[in-house]
Amino acid sequence: MTSSARPAVVAVQAYLDSHADQLLDEYFALVRLASVSADPAHADDVARCAELIASRMVRIGLVDVNVEQTGGHPIVIGRTPWISGAPSFLVYAHYDVQPADPIDEWDHAPFEPVQVGEELRGRGISDDKSAVHMHLAVAEAYLATGALAVNLEFAFEGEEELSSPHFEAWLEQRAGAGDALDGCVVSDTTFLSAETPSLGTGVRGLAYIELDVRTAAADLHSGGYGGAVPNAADALVQILAALKDRQGAITVAGFSAAVRTDDAFRRRMASLPFDEAGWLAGAQLVAGAPVGDRDRSVLERLWLQPSLDINGMWAGYAGAGPKTVIPSHAGAKISCRLVPDQDPAEILRMLDAAVRAATPAWAEVSVTPVSSSWPATASADSRLAKAALRSLELAFGTEPVLQREGGSIPVVGMLAARLPDVPLILLGFSPPDDRAHAPNERMRMWNYLGGLSTLAHLWTQIAQEAINDPVS
Amino acid sequence: MTSSARPAVVAVQAYLDSHADQLLDEYFALVRLASVSADPAHADDVARCAELIASRMVRIGLVDVNVEQTGGHPIVIGRTPWISGAPSFLVYAHYDVQPADPIDEWDHAPFEPVQVGEELRGRGISDDKSAVHMHLAVAEAYLATGALAVNLEFAFEGEEELSSPHFEAWLEQRAGAGDALDGCVVSDTTFLSAETPSLGTGVRGLAYIELDVRTAAADLHSGGYGGAVPNAADALVQILAALKDRQGAITVAGFSAAVRTDDAFRRRMASLPFDEAGWLAGAQLVAGAPVGDRDRSVLERLWLQPSLDINGMWAGYAGAGPKTVIPSHAGAKISCRLVPDQDPAEILRMLDAAVRAATPAWAEVSVTPVSSSWPATASADSRLAKAALRSLELAFGTEPVLQREGGSIPVVGMLAARLPDVPLILLGFSPPDDRAHAPNERMRMWNYLGGLSTLAHLWTQIAQEAINDPVS
Repeated sequence: MTSSARPAVVAVQAYLDSHADQLLDEYFALVRLASVSADPAHADDVARCAELIASRMVRIGLVDVNVEQTGGHPIVIGRTPWISGAPSFLVYAHYDVQPADPIDEWDHAPFEPVQVGEELRGRGISDDKSAVHMHLAVAEAYLATGALAVNLEFAFEGEEELSSPHFEAWLEQRAGAGDALDGCVVSDTTFLSAETPSLGTGVRGLAYIELDVRTAAADLHSGGYGGAVPNAADALVQILAALKDRQGAITVAGFSAAVRTDDAFRRRMASLPFDEAGWLAGAQLVAGAPVGDRDRSVLERLWLQPSLDINGMWAGYAGAGPKTVIPSHAGAKISCRLVPDQDPAEILRMLDAAVRAATPAWAEVSVTPVSSSWPATASADSRLAKAALRSLELAFGTEPVLQREGGSIPVVGMLAARLPDVPLILLGFSPPDDRAHAPNERMRMWNYLGGLSTLAHLWTQIAQEAINDPVS
Repeated sequence: MTSSARPAVVAVQAYLDSHADQLLDEYFALVRLASVSADPAHADDVARCAELIASRMVRIGLVDVNVEQTGGHPIVIGRTPWISGAPSFLVYAHYDVQPADPIDEWDHAPFEPVQVGEELRGRGISDDKSAVHMHLAVAEAYLATGALAVNLEFAFEGEEELSSPHFEAWLEQRAGAGDALDGCVVSDTTFLSAETPSLGTGVRGLAYIELDVRTAAADLHSGGYGGAVPNAADALVQILAALKDRQGAITVAGFSAAVRTDDAFRRRMASLPFDEAGWLAGAQLVAGAPVGDRDRSVLERLWLQPSLDINGMWAGYAGAGPKTVIPSHAGAKISCRLVPDQDPAEILRMLDAAVRAATPAWAEVSVTPVSSSWPATASADSRLAKAALRSLELAFGTEPVLQREGGSIPVVGMLAARLPDVPLILLGFSPPDDRAHAPNERMRMWNYLGGLSTLAHLWTQIAQEAINDPVS
């Protein structure tokens, strides 16, 4: 059942090359389905996308294929035919996508994928249908050539853009009932730069609240009442001003107490090929300079430091022209990015307490926790991580780097919590300027073809490891 | 040409009584036209309303009737047939109305006026078509009975709800070209309480700005950027927090320097029949108590103290559910009510300076002055004011009170500036709980019929004054 490394990879790579056009067609077919999980109007498209993936799994030879109902959008499951004694891996990606709004700003129809020069364009072409497609393409090549020497179980989620509300329940059941795993591969990250192959070793967590402030039953006229009645916008301003100081430091009591430093990673970060000037230019800041703790590099602020951002706020009249109203209620959405060992439930409690403490006596406030996820790290020292690093180098011809993500991937924290002894890697291939969530989302051919090749190497590398030094 | 007081009033009152049904029909016809000046979709309704008023003026015997074009909505002008040597008065009211939104909260269609018990309901039935109608009804009665012994010039504006952008230009031309005036009557105010006949002696001024804060060219993802880039909502919070302290005191430099105390009026205020508990109950505050300077009464805060209110603010995402965006721009509308001798242009400059001083280095701000008007007072000692006070008492059977308005009527400041030697009174009849600008706007029959009677007395009282002691 196993084969030596070179012949397997050569055969798999040859299959991928000779089927390049067919595979690109299948990639595009996936993107053509508008699987927008947030929009009930697209529920049928999400379901059709799950069915398309399942039928493709069956066709390439996966077994136990199932569109698992979750209460929300389904998780599509499939496994390679079981090889007793071979190492087993769970592979995660997601097939749901962000809404295409603002549609006007697309150069092409978002759900009619196109190739423009060396770029592929379309909603989800990077985030994260690239990963769903590449994993299935490489599995097909391995199964067609008889080269596979590991067990792969694919779990493609349909609710990642909704913060994975049903994945943990599925995972709990899987962790209790399924075969033992030797590793998890989460494919939903980007490279540090377009041409710097990267392995993810951590994500920030999230704590998101919404708050509503009320001062009166209805808005009042500022002429008849101004100066003698409270204004809900004033209350909101006082609350928000209490969460950060004028320099931007978070002032929520206890907020950073659990933050731990990772000096080893900090030292490694210093040598990363991070183009700060290019990153800044991309952010298009009016100030031209970043904000935050000047004693830390920009990357450190993004990866190793928590943040607190107002994501939205509103009060009173926002239309054209003047309206002399005293708003009776006001609201805001606030989210924090968390780093180890910040507990999102604790942070939600701290935010709630800070908001209540800052609310003036003449206002009522309600605080609603909206979503949360754990920060998580992934070791770069596991056999799986080492195999991934070798595979990236073999495929891209460049030494890969270790990076973290400033963003949050809830399933990473769930996997770390539910499968604490199973090595985990974050292996994605998209360029960081892929415009995920934005108009004209794109995948570069270089990253796509290199990513296919990386996965072709990976399953052989890790099988080779298993032969040399069996995974427990 | 003149007649003794009793017969004239008796004749006029008899005409109003015997034509009550016809007059109510004409009142409703005025309300049926949705003359919403702010909404371009209602421009035709505004024009039709002006034409309806003009044709009614012609029918009742006014001369020099003209729908004066202004560049915005027209001012409808008409005069009683000129009596040489008789005192002359300019009468102001406005025929434009606020939008009817939120329509859902009306018990009846807003532009289909109805009588519900002792109330009339409809958009504009109080503010300010009641005044337009009542003045025309009383002029009709005077002209039909031959009892008029004064000259009246009516100027009914169509842009009061837009802060009267074209009225001053018309007034400048009128002040230069028209006949000399012995007084101005502005009818756009309410009583202190529904059953307390009141003469207005002052309005607060207004200074309204809109500001826009920008930190980046576009919104950024809070995962990829949070902690290293500025947030426009933070900048807005810092700016707004700098305008008032946590106790609500205005902290804009120089803001209150020009405020002058009016001790005589303060003493009179103490005896006014102001139902603070009822006023508070009407405001439906969650705190149950007013805010502001505890050393001053609520009425003093509303009439003699300036105020600063956030009328609206916005940033980022205000839709359902979480969105992890860092807003790149944010904005707010802010207005101040001003008291003598605050200069609205000075206040606009102070607001601009305060906003700029509070804007962090990492944000850009633009401040746009939106509208402004002067605070103004009106003497209660003029013959016109005394005639109005007598007329109120004769009509309502209760001694009237002197009051001020917390709100602003831009034309009052314009009249005071352009016609500084002409006595001015603020004479309106609506109850303070008339729901102007809100759903289910209403006029009480008691106030309507008493108001008609007051105006019937007024033109006779002031003519009587002129006979006894000619107005210069």
